[in-house]
Formats: sequence, structure tokens, C-alpha cells
Amino acid sequence: MKQRAITAFIFAGIMLGGIYWNILSFQVLFTVIAAGALWELTGILFRPGSAWRTGRRLIGCLTGLFPVIWMGIWLLQDGAGLPETGHTGLSSWQADTFHLGLVFGGTAFFILCLFLIELFIPDPTPAETIGHYLLGLFYIGIPIIALFELATPGSVYLPHRVFGLIWLIWTNDTFAYLIGSQLGRTKLFERISPKKTWEGTFGGMAGAMLMAWGLSFWLGEYTPVQWLALGAIVGVIGTLGDLVESMLKRSVGIKDSGTIMPGHGGLLDRFDSFLFVAPFAWLVVKMLGG
Amino acid sequence: MKQRAITAFIFAGIMLGGIYWNILSFQVLFTVIAAGALWELTGILFRPGSAWRTGRRLIGCLTGLFPVIWMGIWLLQDGAGLPETGHTGLSSWQADTFHLGLVFGGTAFFILCLFLIELFIPDPTPAETIGHYLLGLFYIGIPIIALFELATPGSVYLPHRVFGLIWLIWTNDTFAYLIGSQLGRTKLFERISPKKTWEGTFGGMAGAMLMAWGLSFWLGEYTPVQWLALGAIVGVIGTLGDLVESMLKRSVGIKDSGTIMPGHGGLLDRFDSFLFVAPFAWLVVKMLGG
Repeated sequence: MKQRAITAFIFAGIMLGGIYWNILSFQVLFTVIAAGALWELTGILFRPGSAWRTGRRLIGCLTGLFPVIWMGIWLLQDGAGLPETGHTGLSSWQADTFHLGLVFGGTAFFILCLFLIELFIPDPTPAETIGHYLLGLFYIGIPIIALFELATPGSVYLPHRVFGLIWLIWTNDTFAYLIGSQLGRTKLFERISPKKTWEGTFGGMAGAMLMAWGLSFWLGEYTPVQWLALGAIVGVIGTLGDLVESMLKRSVGIKDSGTIMPGHGGLLDRFDSFLFVAPFAWLVVKMLGG
Repeated sequence: MKQRAITAFIFAGIMLGGIYWNILSFQVLFTVIAAGALWELTGILFRPGSAWRTGRRLIGCLTGLFPVIWMGIWLLQDGAGLPETGHTGLSSWQADTFHLGLVFGGTAFFILCLFLIELFIPDPTPAETIGHYLLGLFYIGIPIIALFELATPGSVYLPHRVFGLIWLIWTNDTFAYLIGSQLGRTKLFERISPKKTWEGTFGGMAGAMLMAWGLSFWLGEYTPVQWLALGAIVGVIGTLGDLVESMLKRSVGIKDSGTIMPGHGGLLDRFDSFLFVAPFAWLVVKMLGG
């Protein structure tokens, strides 16, 4: 219990510092989180004892990190070459679309090179190996890109947006746990996550929306409608993201993704909801004019 | 032999008609080719007898086709909403980057939904299944997108570019076969493709570059330097693309990807070089100012 509290305290300090110091610390923080989560994910996908395991885990990490680092470099250049500065006629949708093209265009060539690398590795199942690399790209790399987009509209870094999203997810998890353990009767998805209940899920969503309403006063950044939409997204997609991670872990028969945080499981366990929420949060807020 | 000739004749007619009629027939032709190739690829990846096989093949096809159809719809709208028309200040690189962002942005959300779909399928290996879906996306869907970009600079469709690329690949294959079977002594990559030789590979590349030089007069479209670069790309990347397909087939122990073209194997066998060449052809020509 004491160990859990100390871990949580250090973790919260690192998160707050990284988010609020500046854009560079924000990027480094989430690049490191992505790297750690990818290391855990590839450890799940490439089983202990399989051939070339460490090499494959490294390539898998690199695949997921490629768009994150590539995007990070562009963001740090303070809009150099990005259309906000040169082409002010672009809407915020168009500017984000342009960034995505940059990130994905480079990544697509990286992926094609993975096929070529496999030629030179005597791997009995190249299709499976490349598939595993791609899983990390979409499950971890792309969500972090969505977070970068969400946090830097018009190339200006807005840390409240990142903190707000994480705070909503934490609120959702806490309310879901409290209400679920008190009132939970109806199983939500017993096959994948036996402890989750509908009561807890709705409780979590209610808590997140209530908190979102509060954040619209305390943090600003978004309109109340946008914040409430974020709360709802966190409630629905966050829960689904949690289930997806449980599914991936169950398919290989493990419980915790790692041991980096004593008493809290691995990074992937901590960020499973967050990773799934980020792209949808970006989309929904954008659709509401954010 | 006669059957081979008839098949080749019909195939050439369909290709020429589709490429040269108009942009719609071009898109339909390559969307159908992509669909067929995806059906063959998913047939290789999801083995006969595996659970939910047909459903998974369909989802796999849909995943690879999603960017193709999505991009096709944008192209058919004659630049509506695309930056060439609204923002003439964008360079041709920037305009292509914007298109890629549109295509990949939509596709990324489609992929996230695949994770959610897997929640509701009692699939013992969800990570492998999603990995297989993603393989088709990168191996077939994205190259077709690159072809669309290559063929429609500034939203104007230039069929000679498509014909020229296919003609170069055909020249490369033919020269590689002729010279390899006469002079071939040194194995290129015996583990994956026992018949290929270095002599044949260099012969194919020389043939492709000679043809490329000719095409610079007959077709125009590109400068001689751009054509020669395309010839070299076809020689190198086309051969590698062929090897990659052999690798994927060998990993499941089959020889032909399908039987759609009697005597010629499957669509994937016919287009393996082409799929790998298209993205690199786009990149190299673009870098040379095309």
C-alpha cells in the first residue's frame, strides 16, 4: 500500500512536470511513455524464447516510435515548413490533415522498408512479424500523434488540454471503480474483463462528465460543450480501450503488461484508456470547432 | 501456351482500356485489382479451415480498400476541398502531403475500429488477426494510393505515367527472364527465390533503363532524367518487391497466390513488383521535381 502511494506520487510529479514545463518536455515525456509501452507490447507479442526476440522488439519499438519522433522534430521546428506559417489560408482541419500526411507519408516508407528487412532475416513467419510491428504503430504510435495534434493547435502548445484529458480519464477510472465496487451487479464484458460492470461504467462516465463541466471553468481552453463531449468520449472510448488491452493480454495469457510501476502494473496498463481516447478526443473536439 | 497467350491478350486489353479511358475507369481498374490482390493475400494469411475465415478475409479486404476508395472519392470530386484549388500557394509536395493526411487520417480511425470489432469476436489470437489486416493495408492499399498520387499531379489525370510505369516493369521482368535464363550463373537470393540470378537482375535493370530512355521521347510526361531514375527504381525495387511476395508465400508454403489468370498465377503474382515500386516511383520522381 505504501509502495503504491509512493509510486503514484512520483508518477504524478513526473507527469505534471513534463506536461507543464514546456513543449519539449511534453514531447520527451510522451515519447518515453510510448517507448516504454511499445517495449511492453512487443514483449507480449514476441513471446519469450522466440527467435530474434530482442531484435524484433527493438524493430517493433522503432516502428511505433517513428511517427512520434518524426512529428516531434517537425513540431520543434516551430512550424517551419508547416502550412500555418506559410499558408494562413488553411483551416485548422486542413493544417492538421497536412501534419498527418507528413507523419504518415514518412511512416509508410519506413513500413515498406520493414518488408525488405524481413528478406534478410531467416524468419519462418514474416507475415506475423510484420503484423506485430504494425500493431504497435496503430495501437501506440498513432494515438500519441493524435495527442500531439490535440495539444498543439496552430503550433502553439496548450498543456491544459493534455492535463485535462488525463484528469478526465483518471476521474472516469476512479468513479468507475468506486461505483462499480459498491453498486455493480450487471457484468459489462465478462469474457474479457470479468470485474467490469455496467453500473461502474455509467458511474465513471457520469463522474467524467461532471469533472469535465468543472474543468470548463477551472482550465478554460475548450467550451463547456466541448468539455462535456470529451467527458462522454472518455467514458465510452476509455472503457473500450481498457477492454482492448485486456483482450490483447488475454490472448497471450498474462495479467500485467509490465512491472515498471510497483503496485500499478506496466505503462501499457496505465495508459490503455488514454491511448484509445486520444484520437477520438481530437476528432470530436475538432468537429465541435475546437 | 495458347491459354497463356489468350489470358495475356485479354489482360492487356483490360489494362490499356482502364488506364486510357478516363480517371474513373483508371480508379475502378486499380480498385478492382487491389480488391482481388487483397482477397488473395487474406486467403494466404487466414489459412483454410481457420475460424471465421471468410469474415476475416472480408474485413482484411475492406481494410486495404478503405484508403483506396476514400482517396478515389476525393479525387473524383475534382479537387473539391483539396488544397490545389483553394490554396494555390501550396507546392506540389504540400498538396500530395495534404492528400496523404486525408487518406491516412480516415484510415487510422478505421483501424482503431478494427480493434473494437475484435472485442466482439471470440478470436483466440486477436493480435495476429489485426496484424494481418494491417499487412494488407500497407502491402496493397498504400501502394495503390501512391499510384493515385503519381498519376494525378494537381488533380489532373495523366494516364501515360501509369502506362509507362507498368511498361517499365514488364520490360524489366522480360529482360531479367531472357538474360537470366541465358547467362544466369550467380544466385541472387537462393533461400527465397531459387531461380533469380544477379545476371538476370542486372539485365532487367539495363533493359528497363533503355526502355525508360525511349519512353522519354515516346510518352514525354517526365524529363529523361526522371525516366532513367524510374527505370533504375523499377530494376531495384521491382526485384525486391518480387522477393517480398515470394517470402510471404513461402512462409505459408504456397507457390501461386491465386488462379484468376490461367497460366499466370494470381493477381498478387502479377502485381507484386508494381505494388512495391509505386511508392518509391512517386518519391523519386517527386524528388527530381516531377
